[in-house]
Amino acid sequence: MTTIQRQGTASRKNIQEKTKIAPHVVIVGGGFGGLQAAKALGDQPVQVTIIDRNNFHLFQPMLYQVATAGLSPADIANPLRAVLEKQANTGVLMAEVTGIDIDQQQVLLGENQALHYDYLIVATGATSNYFGHPEWEKLAPGLKSVNDALVIRRQVLSAFEAAEREPDEQKRKALLTFVLVGGGPTGVELSGAIAELARQSLKGDFRHIDPTMTRIVLVQGPKRILPSFPAHLAEQANKKLQQLGVEIRTGLHVKEVRQDGVMIGDEHLATENVIWTAGVKASPAGEWLHADVDHDGRVKVQQDLTAPGHSNIFVIGDTALATQNGKHLPGLAPVAMQEANYVASVIVGRVRGEMPPARFHYFDKGTLATVGRGFGIVSIGPARFAGLLAWLIWLFVHILFLIGARNRLLVFIQYAWTYFTFQRGTRVIVPEEKGHKP
Amino acid sequence: MTTIQRQGTASRKNIQEKTKIAPHVVIVGGGFGGLQAAKALGDQPVQVTIIDRNNFHLFQPMLYQVATAGLSPADIANPLRAVLEKQANTGVLMAEVTGIDIDQQQVLLGENQALHYDYLIVATGATSNYFGHPEWEKLAPGLKSVNDALVIRRQVLSAFEAAEREPDEQKRKALLTFVLVGGGPTGVELSGAIAELARQSLKGDFRHIDPTMTRIVLVQGPKRILPSFPAHLAEQANKKLQQLGVEIRTGLHVKEVRQDGVMIGDEHLATENVIWTAGVKASPAGEWLHADVDHDGRVKVQQDLTAPGHSNIFVIGDTALATQNGKHLPGLAPVAMQEANYVASVIVGRVRGEMPPARFHYFDKGTLATVGRGFGIVSIGPARFAGLLAWLIWLFVHILFLIGARNRLLVFIQYAWTYFTFQRGTRVIVPEEKGHKP
Repeated sequence: MTTIQRQGTASRKNIQEKTKIAPHVVIVGGGFGGLQAAKALGDQPVQVTIIDRNNFHLFQPMLYQVATAGLSPADIANPLRAVLEKQANTGVLMAEVTGIDIDQQQVLLGENQALHYDYLIVATGATSNYFGHPEWEKLAPGLKSVNDALVIRRQVLSAFEAAEREPDEQKRKALLTFVLVGGGPTGVELSGAIAELARQSLKGDFRHIDPTMTRIVLVQGPKRILPSFPAHLAEQANKKLQQLGVEIRTGLHVKEVRQDGVMIGDEHLATENVIWTAGVKASPAGEWLHADVDHDGRVKVQQDLTAPGHSNIFVIGDTALATQNGKHLPGLAPVAMQEANYVASVIVGRVRGEMPPARFHYFDKGTLATVGRGFGIVSIGPARFAGLLAWLIWLFVHILFLIGARNRLLVFIQYAWTYFTFQRGTRVIVPEEKGHKP
Repeated sequence: MTTIQRQGTASRKNIQEKTKIAPHVVIVGGGFGGLQAAKALGDQPVQVTIIDRNNFHLFQPMLYQVATAGLSPADIANPLRAVLEKQANTGVLMAEVTGIDIDQQQVLLGENQALHYDYLIVATGATSNYFGHPEWEKLAPGLKSVNDALVIRRQVLSAFEAAEREPDEQKRKALLTFVLVGGGPTGVELSGAIAELARQSLKGDFRHIDPTMTRIVLVQGPKRILPSFPAHLAEQANKKLQQLGVEIRTGLHVKEVRQDGVMIGDEHLATENVIWTAGVKASPAGEWLHADVDHDGRVKVQQDLTAPGHSNIFVIGDTALATQNGKHLPGLAPVAMQEANYVASVIVGRVRGEMPPARFHYFDKGTLATVGRGFGIVSIGPARFAGLLAWLIWLFVHILFLIGARNRLLVFIQYAWTYFTFQRGTRVIVPEEKGHKP
């Protein structure tokens, strides 16, 4: 049991274990990697603290549904405390990690607290990458957090509302044009869902505009969308998106994002709505660790997922650049979770004085994506197919991986409701706050 | 069908009907009164526009559940457009009404638009009343809007998180003290729900604090809580709240709200969490209409609910001060809805050249309230009782009045889940936004 202490000598108050009964494993980040590591360390002869700036674990694969008014945030978020409540050796801290003091073996929390670790697992994830244009972030939100999803939802729904009361035709057109930058799974899922929102859910709801005339443009730098999938599956997703009325522009880059539009290659497209899913960059953990990172900020980890030179610091998930058979492992939940299990086994092995497994090996169970209502693509070993069955598999697997019966039931009901009624249940524009007691 | 036009002569762009096929009824406000008025005017020989600053109708009686992590906002909110989609003579505008130009018969929208009306129904509701201390609003949020509910939810959940990492005992105590100002139904429902959150849902989730030690204080100026209910029912609610561990202080006023606490009478109570449900004041509609208002800003309407001197302007719901048998009608949803039906019948009568009903008469169907899980109070005619059956009636009636099968099902499931598991499903702290494209 950790308790809170003041340390007379240190400038920071150290939140440290009172009686050291077991080595203290600190996990920074409560995403797929961090939470899995905490679970894997339950019932082991260690003491665990998991820290996240949020009080919940977010099931990111369904975040596009929050952004497109299909689900509420709480349907895909679980309080970390509730998930880990029964795990007696584990504590949860909601706090902002501001750095790591490697010499003192401390995680720095906020401005004046610190937490000692014996082993550290860094699982701080990634944020949207604007490739040297941070000023675009305010104009073109990404989709990484609950706030991002609510901002996108507000922007998408508000665009139709503003168009309804806009007398100028050019401005109305710009309001009803959506540009999605990035043709990976998130861009594909979002553009499909926005197309269905406009052409099905909102159809008939307005008096001055016709939402079915909404223009949705998906811009992709590489030659095709979904480059992580086999070409013929990407081709089928491409076709499905076009059926839904999504314009796909491949081999083109967004050169500028402005208040009134975007430059796609040399063409200016007037739009009030730009959404950014073009890439991710790792959290600043690399800087905290003074570690060697790649161009996206990912820490180049050793084969046992330790940070070079620090045998008690592990980096996993989107923050890590792990390599297998000469290829970089992708930033996917299964990678993070398998890394978490491996790291937990290494730590337990060391604590017990047993021989830990020599190196991490990722086992690829396959990938899934969804393109609108009732259409998915599946690539599992030799099985590669698209359509309704693939969508059902996608839905089944994702509902299975949700945490808790409540969220599973609510998500299932809402997907089924949307499937049969073409409606989306969370079309609520929550206005931005005006500032409250901090 | 209204279409959008520019007017060369006017400084504002007038959103006005192109070909006048029927008198235009403009409804300002999409709450219980406004929405009911719109529904009652469907299929009638009028053209209807309903305006709200939000895109949804909010089922306020369950808002306390959003504030206490039992429900998501979308579970009790419906897009006005979706609700009124099939009503061919009705349009919905999401816009901020900034005033009324009575001479020109125009509702002023934002900074540069206006909408002509033949009949106007003002149903703009009420906001929290800080009785001359607007500076308290930031320190003590009220519970009137979705944003309010999310702010309170964040504050309540964050207080426990901050206490968990707070080494100072006095500060920890202040974080775990909740003061609710106002002992009407909202204050009673909120304090009961916070007590259950702390003592049941959060029990066992923390390592450094014991949430069951949370102090919850309900402060009520009048001599007893729930003054609108019969005394013996209020007494039973009082007992139930005390069982839940709520301290009730009646006959006392909050004299000051500060960052670090409140003055209750002459006593200073250290707390980081103050919630304000002590009273409401009407929207500024009275000012727009230059009408005679009471001390809470409610327009003193005629017996046919028109604003004095303006036979085509009606004021209903919390914005109106209607009187029956010498008593003011309370600010309740049934009052607003019955007023809406009456006003619709007056307008339809006039349009058809028939004799409209002479005066509004409110029929009191009874009142209900809930005090925590499984305990309600009911006062319907001679039937007055408290307990589980009353709670079930409360739940049944409120789920019945929710709009749409989706919301009814989701709310029912979540109430049932909370009832049986003692958990609350939306314990998600969404951080305040950092500013986005407006």
